[in-house]
Amino acid sequence: MRNVAIIGTGHTKFGVRTDVNLQELAWEAIKQALEEANLEPKDIQYFSVGNVGSWSAEELPAIVVGEYAGLCPKGTMRVEAACASGSAALREAYLAVKSGEVDIALAVGVEQMHQSPNPQVVELIGRAGNYFWEFENFGLTFPGYYALHATAYMAKYGAKQEDLGEIAIKNHYYGARNPYAQFQKEITMEEYLNSRMVAYPLKLLDSSPITDGAAAVILASEDVAKKITDSPVWIVSQGVASGSANLSRRTDYTHIEAAYLAAQQAYKKANIEFENAWKYFDVAEVHDCFTIAEIMAYEDLGFAKRGEGYLLAREKQTYIGGRIPVNVDGGLKAKGHPIGATGVSMAVSITRQLLYRAHKGTQVDVKNGMGVAHNVGGTGHYAYVTIFSTRRPST
Amino acid sequence: MRNVAIIGTGHTKFGVRTDVNLQELAWEAIKQALEEANLEPKDIQYFSVGNVGSWSAEELPAIVVGEYAGLCPKGTMRVEAACASGSAALREAYLAVKSGEVDIALAVGVEQMHQSPNPQVVELIGRAGNYFWEFENFGLTFPGYYALHATAYMAKYGAKQEDLGEIAIKNHYYGARNPYAQFQKEITMEEYLNSRMVAYPLKLLDSSPITDGAAAVILASEDVAKKITDSPVWIVSQGVASGSANLSRRTDYTHIEAAYLAAQQAYKKANIEFENAWKYFDVAEVHDCFTIAEIMAYEDLGFAKRGEGYLLAREKQTYIGGRIPVNVDGGLKAKGHPIGATGVSMAVSITRQLLYRAHKGTQVDVKNGMGVAHNVGGTGHYAYVTIFSTRRPST
Repeated sequence: MRNVAIIGTGHTKFGVRTDVNLQELAWEAIKQALEEANLEPKDIQYFSVGNVGSWSAEELPAIVVGEYAGLCPKGTMRVEAACASGSAALREAYLAVKSGEVDIALAVGVEQMHQSPNPQVVELIGRAGNYFWEFENFGLTFPGYYALHATAYMAKYGAKQEDLGEIAIKNHYYGARNPYAQFQKEITMEEYLNSRMVAYPLKLLDSSPITDGAAAVILASEDVAKKITDSPVWIVSQGVASGSANLSRRTDYTHIEAAYLAAQQAYKKANIEFENAWKYFDVAEVHDCFTIAEIMAYEDLGFAKRGEGYLLAREKQTYIGGRIPVNVDGGLKAKGHPIGATGVSMAVSITRQLLYRAHKGTQVDVKNGMGVAHNVGGTGHYAYVTIFSTRRPST
Repeated sequence: MRNVAIIGTGHTKFGVRTDVNLQELAWEAIKQALEEANLEPKDIQYFSVGNVGSWSAEELPAIVVGEYAGLCPKGTMRVEAACASGSAALREAYLAVKSGEVDIALAVGVEQMHQSPNPQVVELIGRAGNYFWEFENFGLTFPGYYALHATAYMAKYGAKQEDLGEIAIKNHYYGARNPYAQFQKEITMEEYLNSRMVAYPLKLLDSSPITDGAAAVILASEDVAKKITDSPVWIVSQGVASGSANLSRRTDYTHIEAAYLAAQQAYKKANIEFENAWKYFDVAEVHDCFTIAEIMAYEDLGFAKRGEGYLLAREKQTYIGGRIPVNVDGGLKAKGHPIGATGVSMAVSITRQLLYRAHKGTQVDVKNGMGVAHNVGGTGHYAYVTIFSTRRPST
């Protein structure tokens, strides 16, 4: 099978982006990726668009985005995997190149969540799960889902509110240094503890925001990548799994089984030992839609033993210089979480880190040349784990 | 690159299927496909779900469908390419196998359009295109879009209302013989001509209906397919293209440029001469969302010269025994058009035709062992053309 490399990356400012429409927002990211790869739209042979868009008037976002970006008449599809839709877009473009169908493909993730009023967006997100049992009958919204995880985790392992706070403080610390982040300001533990309760124990400052934004990557086959760039970042492997639509069927609320399974798959293909996974990576992007999710991610990715993820946070081991730097672009918490774009944004951040192109104050030391992205859709309904490397994989 | 074969097919009764919910509907098709391949859900390594679902309460249809079918925790995504979403699902599963990521994948297309009241469904479909310019400002709904094509075609080439009627009559003729069809009754030219006008010149009997239904195919790599079945149907090639989001930017209303481009791609990869394309195929499934669309498809696929597609209809050359049998399962017109399922339904119909498993009165003579599916999303915003063969392609 063919090797596939990232040869261009693009990223918009995340935040309230009602200054543009959906296609203009996507184009900001696509244009940057094309310029980085020194390519024209006509060079792209296929493109995938990650977009959930339940809040959007546009029924065919891939088409509207594609035409505005000059990608029409190239083939396309829109993909959705809830909050992992960006990773689904990456997967679709990856498979198109890896399979030999095309040599150059673009994956763009875009979401303009402020197209609808916030209460409507919160309702639509709340339907992610089993509509009938959870939303309609129990009235669960998204913070409620993750609050169940947080209380279960804290009860079982003894994590404290302050441990969750450490995640928020770290991600705001790095968000303050990322010009693309929605929230570019640091927060203190006092501010965290005093922030408004949303769903116990999750406070406003545990929660990722409603965000507009886009990110894009251009992928190429090995032969083509070599001609275009001398700094390809290879996609080494990808794991993908799903979880029950119904939270009442889960056996355990203290981790995300689908994320664990996706990590196992990705690690196996890349010959990475789960127990020592953190030693392989220079940087990780994980899905901190709520602070508890980042702690569970540490364990599902093998960065900490079961029940010890919160200690990594407490000991500040996921800052730059610690055991493994995690979400040093601000994460979903501070960078923002435009749900169709987040997975692609993770790929962009890791690529730029591995090439020493990260924003000032956020650059990690690159030793092994490897990074990992962990993107969850719903509350573990979807999980995608992708491994990136500056070193060419053996095929 | 690896060869990919269809090793199992499933298809529900199309029509008003509010007797079941979305996941039960999908399962009807998945179960049949699993039984045909003699596989269990656990054998499926990856699955894609084609679903538009704007009318649905479920935000994560792939997850709900996957869990009900016992496919959880396998990886998945939902794909959307408007009325070509079924072909997008086929593509995603095809790429997953062809790329070597998995050996066995399932593609299911499902749509339950009667979840919402018809006027709301008509509004949502009408947004397919450029929402702002076409729907919001000009009030174009879907029959209106295709009426523009029909009037342009008739004016340029001299086709008559009765030529459109021939398409409807043929597709109802075969629909009457397909137990899965929504409309299992023949119609006469008189009934056609007297049917209610929807958008001149398109009448009610020119129009595909609002439909619920599901279809599934199981794909496998060559090595695995050989172990499972002695009658694989190979996917020889697939072409995919997109068209302008804005009809006012089209240079020509008498054909669907994206479909023509997708056919060119698919034919090139399969070494098929466009001018003689009809000679290669024993059967074709084309996207007759309105009768005019089938006539344009004849030309975009090379079954007739430009401006002569309507003559194929007039001369009844697309019945069994004619130049090339088209939509002999009833097509979108009579079989029905559950938009997420249609592309997969086409693959099911062709597979069963090539294996002499079509419904009584609809079986074509299989000479070359090849068929082609033409699936259009929006009004040519998306197009997927897929070629199937009983003969193993050379890789």
